[in-house]
Amino acid sequence: MSLMKELIKGKVKTVYAVDNVEHVMIMYHDKVTAGNGAKEDRPVGKGEINCAISTLLFNMIRGVTIRTHHISTVGPTMLCQKVDIVPIEVVVRNIAAGSIVRQTTIEEGTVFDTPLIEFYLKDDDKNDPLLTKRRLRLMGYDLHKEIEPLEQMAYDVNYKLRRIFEKIGLTLVDFKLEFGYDVKGNLLLADELSPDGMRLWKQGTQESMDKDLFRKGDGNIIEAYSQILDSLNKLVLSTNNDCSD
Amino acid sequence: MSLMKELIKGKVKTVYAVDNVEHVMIMYHDKVTAGNGAKEDRPVGKGEINCAISTLLFNMIRGVTIRTHHISTVGPTMLCQKVDIVPIEVVVRNIAAGSIVRQTTIEEGTVFDTPLIEFYLKDDDKNDPLLTKRRLRLMGYDLHKEIEPLEQMAYDVNYKLRRIFEKIGLTLVDFKLEFGYDVKGNLLLADELSPDGMRLWKQGTQESMDKDLFRKGDGNIIEAYSQILDSLNKLVLSTNNDCSD
Repeated sequence: MSLMKELIKGKVKTVYAVDNVEHVMIMYHDKVTAGNGAKEDRPVGKGEINCAISTLLFNMIRGVTIRTHHISTVGPTMLCQKVDIVPIEVVVRNIAAGSIVRQTTIEEGTVFDTPLIEFYLKDDDKNDPLLTKRRLRLMGYDLHKEIEPLEQMAYDVNYKLRRIFEKIGLTLVDFKLEFGYDVKGNLLLADELSPDGMRLWKQGTQESMDKDLFRKGDGNIIEAYSQILDSLNKLVLSTNNDCSD
Repeated sequence: MSLMKELIKGKVKTVYAVDNVEHVMIMYHDKVTAGNGAKEDRPVGKGEINCAISTLLFNMIRGVTIRTHHISTVGPTMLCQKVDIVPIEVVVRNIAAGSIVRQTTIEEGTVFDTPLIEFYLKDDDKNDPLLTKRRLRLMGYDLHKEIEPLEQMAYDVNYKLRRIFEKIGLTLVDFKLEFGYDVKGNLLLADELSPDGMRLWKQGTQESMDKDLFRKGDGNIIEAYSQILDSLNKLVLSTNNDCSD
């Protein structure tokens, strides 16, 4: 590993160069952080579980309107298309929770009629501040060409993920997406799709099955994440065996 | 004073009830705060200076499209229409400075082609977070009926204030407005119009003539505010004597 060229060292993942310059290898570490790194733990097995969940979800949602950076997975590592990351985090909210509750008068648990898509500056030093469309435009983005495609793909991802989680007894409250452009200029869904970047509640409750277990310190994320992985694996098997679906 | 009924105690002003229930009295204190009260000082004379600047500016900008809560002034106190304050702070930005620079990639001093109007939740406990139009809608606001009128009046206020400050050698960088509805349901410009809620730079420089002198601790606000008051007084006198203007 020490001979590999490190391209980006994130909080819980590292991106390495591979021989093919159009690809990268992403390693998921046994690490979890919250509060922009203020709180940290190293749960054994977490990297491989999250890498497996991400792999399953990328494979389940990819389609005509959703292209992803994922190519293949071995253990806690993913081979991916190399992308230029768009430095904007896209958050999709189906139900009010987390920062939107702290920053508005909207009550936790409020169900949104249509999903709310929000944009945040990807900048840990600035604490990922919320961006209005007006700010995005002043930052030099072409809203029609550069922001709407992210928004459209985020809607599509939300539509598919909600149905997937519904089938395994979970409600998709909100989640964060990152996007990037590959060498040919295609917009790809990038980063990861795991309970680290989502809020998932057990159906009909507000019981967390995601990183909030760690943020609030009242649960075992390995237990919850493993359960999600098991359920997704079973769902894939049953779907593959059920031609009527 | 101790017999007066206190309605709202703000950080630097107090609102009192008066005998006429449609009016209130607002007292400007010799106090300045920054960082949501984290930093504080008590400069002698500041209340009266700010009350006088606010009075002049309210009088100078009022017109068909801009109605204000101000009725009359004595020393550091203003008699005003009693209003239901809209719990949204409206910020108008002509040039990038302050929080927008910290929260985006926009560089300080960037001149905006059209003024940027932004909305913030008026809630000190939450640190006045930025609101998107989508968040405002989810908070229950009717954008067309409740938000656009604020925006329109803010544009008009900006147009007039910029011209006023230009004439006294200052550039209006940005400012905060508050609005309220009087007992008859009229939308009025409320709160104050003083260098406490504005960024003013000496023309052609980034030299502050506003509360940033206190925030950054590198200047005397009484000196700067008095100078602005003097210049505004002279401007009013010259305008009154000059029928060609």
